[in-house]
Amino acid sequence: MDIASLIGVILALGLILGSIALGSAPFSAFIDLPSFLVVIGGAVAAALICFPMKNMVGSPMVAMKVFLNKAPDLQSLIKQIVELAETARRDGLLALESKIAEVEHPLVKSGLQMAVDGSTPEGVEEVLRTEVSAIAIRHKDGKAVMDQLGRFAPAYGMIGTLMGLIMMLSNMSDPSSIGAGMAVALITTLYGAIVANVFFSPFAEKLGLISRQEMVSMEIAIRGVLAIQSGESPRAIEQKLRTYLPPKQRSAE
Amino acid sequence: MDIASLIGVILALGLILGSIALGSAPFSAFIDLPSFLVVIGGAVAAALICFPMKNMVGSPMVAMKVFLNKAPDLQSLIKQIVELAETARRDGLLALESKIAEVEHPLVKSGLQMAVDGSTPEGVEEVLRTEVSAIAIRHKDGKAVMDQLGRFAPAYGMIGTLMGLIMMLSNMSDPSSIGAGMAVALITTLYGAIVANVFFSPFAEKLGLISRQEMVSMEIAIRGVLAIQSGESPRAIEQKLRTYLPPKQRSAE
Amino acid sequence: MDIASLIGVILALGLILGSIALGSAPFSAFIDLPSFLVVIGGAVAAALICFPMKNMVGSPMVAMKVFLNKAPDLQSLIKQIVELAETARRDGLLALESKIAEVEHPLVKSGLQMAVDGSTPEGVEEVLRTEVSAIAIRHKDGKAVMDQLGRFAPAYGMIGTLMGLIMMLSNMSDPSSIGAGMAVALITTLYGAIVANVFFSPFAEKLGLISRQEMVSMEIAIRGVLAIQSGESPRAIEQKLRTYLPPKQRSAE
Amino acid sequence: MDIASLIGVILALGLILGSIALGSAPFSAFIDLPSFLVVIGGAVAAALICFPMKNMVGSPMVAMKVFLNKAPDLQSLIKQIVELAETARRDGLLALESKIAEVEHPLVKSGLQMAVDGSTPEGVEEVLRTEVSAIAIRHKDGKAVMDQLGRFAPAYGMIGTLMGLIMMLSNMSDPSSIGAGMAVALITTLYGAIVANVFFSPFAEKLGLISRQEMVSMEIAIRGVLAIQSGESPRAIEQKLRTYLPPKQRSAE
Amino acid sequence: MDIASLIGVILALGLILGSIALGSAPFSAFIDLPSFLVVIGGAVAAALICFPMKNMVGSPMVAMKVFLNKAPDLQSLIKQIVELAETARRDGLLALESKIAEVEHPLVKSGLQMAVDGSTPEGVEEVLRTEVSAIAIRHKDGKAVMDQLGRFAPAYGMIGTLMGLIMMLSNMSDPSSIGAGMAVALITTLYGAIVANVFFSPFAEKLGLISRQEMVSMEIAIRGVLAIQSGESPRAIEQKLRTYLPPKQRSAE
Repeated sequence: MDIASLIGVILALGLILGSIALGSAPFSAFIDLPSFLVVIGGAVAAALICFPMKNMVGSPMVAMKVFLNKAPDLQSLIKQIVELAETARRDGLLALESKIAEVEHPLVKSGLQMAVDGSTPEGVEEVLRTEVSAIAIRHKDGKAVMDQLGRFAPAYGMIGTLMGLIMMLSNMSDPSSIGAGMAVALITTLYGAIVANVFFSPFAEKLGLISRQEMVSMEIAIRGVLAIQSGESPRAIEQKLRTYLPPKQRSAE
Repeated sequence: MDIASLIGVILALGLILGSIALGSAPFSAFIDLPSFLVVIGGAVAAALICFPMKNMVGSPMVAMKVFLNKAPDLQSLIKQIVELAETARRDGLLALESKIAEVEHPLVKSGLQMAVDGSTPEGVEEVLRTEVSAIAIRHKDGKAVMDQLGRFAPAYGMIGTLMGLIMMLSNMSDPSSIGAGMAVALITTLYGAIVANVFFSPFAEKLGLISRQEMVSMEIAIRGVLAIQSGESPRAIEQKLRTYLPPKQRSAE
Repeated sequence: MDIASLIGVILALGLILGSIALGSAPFSAFIDLPSFLVVIGGAVAAALICFPMKNMVGSPMVAMKVFLNKAPDLQSLIKQIVELAETARRDGLLALESKIAEVEHPLVKSGLQMAVDGSTPEGVEEVLRTEVSAIAIRHKDGKAVMDQLGRFAPAYGMIGTLMGLIMMLSNMSDPSSIGAGMAVALITTLYGAIVANVFFSPFAEKLGLISRQEMVSMEIAIRGVLAIQSGESPRAIEQKLRTYLPPKQRSAE
Repeated sequence: MDIASLIGVILALGLILGSIALGSAPFSAFIDLPSFLVVIGGAVAAALICFPMKNMVGSPMVAMKVFLNKAPDLQSLIKQIVELAETARRDGLLALESKIAEVEHPLVKSGLQMAVDGSTPEGVEEVLRTEVSAIAIRHKDGKAVMDQLGRFAPAYGMIGTLMGLIMMLSNMSDPSSIGAGMAVALITTLYGAIVANVFFSPFAEKLGLISRQEMVSMEIAIRGVLAIQSGESPRAIEQKLRTYLPPKQRSAE
Repeated sequence: MDIASLIGVILALGLILGSIALGSAPFSAFIDLPSFLVVIGGAVAAALICFPMKNMVGSPMVAMKVFLNKAPDLQSLIKQIVELAETARRDGLLALESKIAEVEHPLVKSGLQMAVDGSTPEGVEEVLRTEVSAIAIRHKDGKAVMDQLGRFAPAYGMIGTLMGLIMMLSNMSDPSSIGAGMAVALITTLYGAIVANVFFSPFAEKLGLISRQEMVSMEIAIRGVLAIQSGESPRAIEQKLRTYLPPKQRSAE
């Protein structure tokens, strides 16, 4: 679990609530249900127009990835690939068959299965690369929902504020209520800015980073499988794959 | 039919109308025909300058794709390709001739026809790829109309508001009418924001997604046709093409 | 001639003038020569800094392309290429020499001339591709002038409005003139928005589309010339080139 | 010298000064030294943070290129390359040695020197291409300084205006001074907009165009050198290189 | 150490503080702790959501690179490579083994070690290129933190200002306090603009430039190692690598 994202959300909300608490106005001055509905409902509605139902239904789970994601453990992935390479070197490619069930990384698993089943290296690479680009597209689709929510929330915030201003301006018989009317109108813009900058936009950014990290782990998996299949020495494979690690982790060899 | 887009439009409009109904001002305060004409007319006029008449005439039908589009059924496409591959394996490529008429996917149809007619694999691939890139350009042109409408609607909204403000400011003999004048001026900006964020921008986004989905189905079709022509085993073709499916659909084999 | 662009400009201007006519203020409230000079003059001045004199002098003619452009007639281009292929097939490549003078498309003309003169296919392709990329650069340069005018017009509109506001604010001895002063200040922003959204930005968009259309026609020309030179059958050439047509035009064969 | 840029700057400044002169406020209302320092000083300070001292010291000279740049004379470059090709054809590659000193274009010079010294065509092309990409990076770095100045000037203009507004608002004991205070606050935004839109942004744009022009002349030089080295006929070289010229200049052969 | 960045930060802060000192309001009018917390805390919180804890913890050190970075000394790098090439030419590749310990550049070091250990040129290049692209990704991740901080600081500045405005507007019983309330509200926007334009955005820009400079030095290292391994003459290597230097440094040969 990535504690940073949780701390970030709590810190951001804490700062906003704290500075309201320190301010001169009561909390109630910042609460307006219709404004909340226009911003959240509007952003969700616009996203519903943009994406198929399936993507929208899955998006809360995608958002949870921001908090639950664990950076892929590249070191143990490399270690496992090297062990598999040693087995293959010692006992032949077919000896891997019994070990495939224990492999966790899905690409290593399916790649080795294909190799054992006799696919050519080109065939294995083609299938694995297709798989990776299909995964990359799914990642992009997940990120795109957050991106659009982060773009439409402020837009509907502005729509709500414009509606509030028009209501206020078209009925100015009681000048003393102008301030309060304007305050309510601005709340929608505030909600849109908070929702976009505390949740959706940082979430989209994080999902992009998670995807880039997984792409590195998949590149390692593909290179590892192909190296095992072509019978490279475990030592050479390790050296090549460790290049993907940041220098600090490498020296911890 | 993709119900999500319809729900999205109804939800967005419902939220906007609902929060007007809950507000202190009558509906009439939000209705102003000249403002509506400037925003919609202006956006359409600007799009007419940008695109040939043909694209503009076709754009309502393109917009309907947002609601009527059905995600391509990749599973049955793959199934059909595998069946064709079995026929070709068993009875030879020419045996496909009688089956081509039943094929629905246009690329599979024309690709197999060419293969049966004796084109080389390179020739088949060149024609199919050219076809796909021509389709991609037509998709982009369709999306571009929505993109520009979504960009010009708020711009003409601002033009309308500036005109309203100038009218109001150049005639301030009756101060009590200032509020109402400003309300009317803001309506144009509101219309521009609503039209762009409920219709044109999400529509453009959806059209982009639909196009990406169709591109996947076309890639499957091309790969399938070429694999059939090169005589690959139906089982190998199935395995390769299923890589394009999301994992859940794959396990439903 | 592309009537859509003309209708678009007339419609946009008509809507703007119409809603002024319907409004409470006289036309004179929207006319301010210095504001007009700052916006148009400023945008032109900024563009003069950006581009060499030659590009600026040619830009009115480039702008006329928006209205006078005719979509390239791909069908008759393909028909002509097929006829040339038939001649070449029947009477040899050299028989084309007498027909080259009648060819309209400049790339087909120069490509066939080179082929007749004995250039290698690689040589012909290199020269034609260089030609196309040089044309693409000229198209981009033409579009860039419109893009920059569309970007600087609102910027100088804002400069004019800021100047007007400063004038007004630094001399508020007569409060009754504030409204009028502010109205005049806003006119410059209005002019900038109108000029950018009725003329320059849509013009730039249209020039991009025209360029993309011509690129398709040039791709057809290059492929056609190379196919003729390599002696492909007229029927195969036709089939290949028709792939570039939208499906409707194709079925009209 | 490119007179257009000079005319552009003079025209833009003339329009701004002229409309101030025509206005109701004295010139002094538009002059505020601290505002000027915040905008110019701030933009320069931000650029100093972004770039090494060397790039900043060189940037005034880079800016002068906007005015002093002469479009490369492609026609005489091609003419010279063709003459060199004739010499090489007639008297052999080594006969070029005595002529290299007269060659002006640095890439032609160093490329031919390498060819005469016996480098392989691949070696010559590699060195020249590396050279060109290094030049392209230097051009980009020069343009980047102008881009950042054009981006930070309005940002510091806004910072100055915010500071002015806060000063004014925190001390409103004398309501009659509000207008003047606000006018001064806005001056900083005005300065930022003028500096960015009259100088930095158009300069950046022009530097990009100058770089693209030089890239074309370098491409001609590389192709010319390689063609001479491979012994192509002067006539073929001329035909190939003239493709880079706009059609009008070509017909002036 | 790159003095320009330090001068830039001091100059920018000096200008801002100086123009406050020259202004009519006391320094205290510009100090508001809650506003500061919302802007800095909010930007950091949003960045915490975007990036793993590790990247955030490392970001102050990344920021210090802006000040402590020394441009890579390409001339001495080339000199060292040429010396190594001379040794390799004279005494064979294995003679480099004793010299590798003295080599500073990590890519030259590991590349030559691999060459001495008997890797093929393709193997060496693959490992070095993988290394460089991994470094490029780490550089991008470091820059991305600054980019996001520079994007979220103004966003949280706006959130703070909206909160301040709502507080002020919802409690306007004392009209004389409106000015002060608005001043406080604007301070948050001012802080966001200063923090973004003095620190985060220019820092991100500088980190991008530092990365591009290091990429050039790594390209030289890779080309140098491969040239040494393939036994090119020291003179040819020097000529090739010096192409990466700006012309002035080259003539200082």
